[in-house]
Amino acid sequence: MRIALLGGTGDIGEGLALRFARDTSHEILIGSRDPEKARDAVADYEAELEARDADAELKGFDNEMAADRADIVIVSVPPYYVGDTVEAVADSLDSDSVLVTPAVGMQGDEDGLHYHPPDTGSVTELVAQRAPDEVPVVGAFHNLAADALSNLDNDLDLDTLVVADNDDAKATVLTVANEIDGLRALEAGPLANAAEVESVTPLVINIAKYNEDMHDVGVKWV
Amino acid sequence: MRIALLGGTGDIGEGLALRFARDTSHEILIGSRDPEKARDAVADYEAELEARDADAELKGFDNEMAADRADIVIVSVPPYYVGDTVEAVADSLDSDSVLVTPAVGMQGDEDGLHYHPPDTGSVTELVAQRAPDEVPVVGAFHNLAADALSNLDNDLDLDTLVVADNDDAKATVLTVANEIDGLRALEAGPLANAAEVESVTPLVINIAKYNEDMHDVGVKWV
Repeated sequence: MRIALLGGTGDIGEGLALRFARDTSHEILIGSRDPEKARDAVADYEAELEARDADAELKGFDNEMAADRADIVIVSVPPYYVGDTVEAVADSLDSDSVLVTPAVGMQGDEDGLHYHPPDTGSVTELVAQRAPDEVPVVGAFHNLAADALSNLDNDLDLDTLVVADNDDAKATVLTVANEIDGLRALEAGPLANAAEVESVTPLVINIAKYNEDMHDVGVKWV
Repeated sequence: MRIALLGGTGDIGEGLALRFARDTSHEILIGSRDPEKARDAVADYEAELEARDADAELKGFDNEMAADRADIVIVSVPPYYVGDTVEAVADSLDSDSVLVTPAVGMQGDEDGLHYHPPDTGSVTELVAQRAPDEVPVVGAFHNLAADALSNLDNDLDLDTLVVADNDDAKATVLTVANEIDGLRALEAGPLANAAEVESVTPLVINIAKYNEDMHDVGVKWV
């Protein structure tokens, strides 16, 4: 399959790109608003993988072209760009696409980070609202620390939760997520359950803030 | 120390009572609105512990008397009784008490359970609002499955998150929670961070609902 990471030049997009490229045989497409930036990231990622004897070819495009060529489109941009990014690539998506959103709305104060969902109830449901009706939307990869993911020296032992209303799309994302070494993808039900999944992201950041010996905190459901 | 479990005749109160009695040397007081019910629960718990060669004496009282005699008062009643229970025992609490709340507000629909906090932002903050001002309030034991806790044959390997504004009270609860075998208590900051902690409870129930091989789901922060 072809997996596109829109906004794949940083944060969680970088880690997902590196790990999908290293651990799976899927073709990885990096998307960015600026295709030059996408190609630069591809060169960096290929060098990073080559240094670990994990040769893989990635490709860089602008977001629209990456989305157009991909079977799975992961919108790994900051939450305040999510809606616009989905609308920008809408014409490149159809009922055979799987649109995946890992974004979470948060607000910080002196106590820590707090979950701050949009009016739709969750960012995942915002993506579903902004995407064309025929495009299945899946929430996944919400509670992963970007640094833990992008450092390939770090062996993962983490869970990610998957929510979707479309069973085929959900099954596809569960399968590819489970192909990343050390990542276990679990079901959490339909899109309506996304808010509780997203709420875990500020919580893992708060746990890292308040426990001195914990960094890049993730979660295992046991 | 003396630890009171108000509403300690069922659900999470039962499991906490049994495990505190088995794993620590603290004196365990079972509270109930009906003191006879509390004493019946004590007899059951002592028999359960004796059958496992873990002799311990517990004591049963009405909620007010249990609260009055205890250093740590855990309000393990259903969420819709929490406010009234706190007010009923208010005269038995003072600045030397530590009032602990594990309750979570949830609502269910066909998709699963959803976090449904009161207007205070969280049940933990509701308890702080209803308790006398001088009584330190600690949120803890939120995300534990009652059945996993009360079955002493089940070796725990779980985390619980602790929130409080009062550092001494928080340290006390962290210490006693860590004394339960297989339970690790972690800090999650002040009471203002309680909502994200409480949100994990509907989520673990949804995960159990949607993953066939998972039951009594708990959480490890890694």
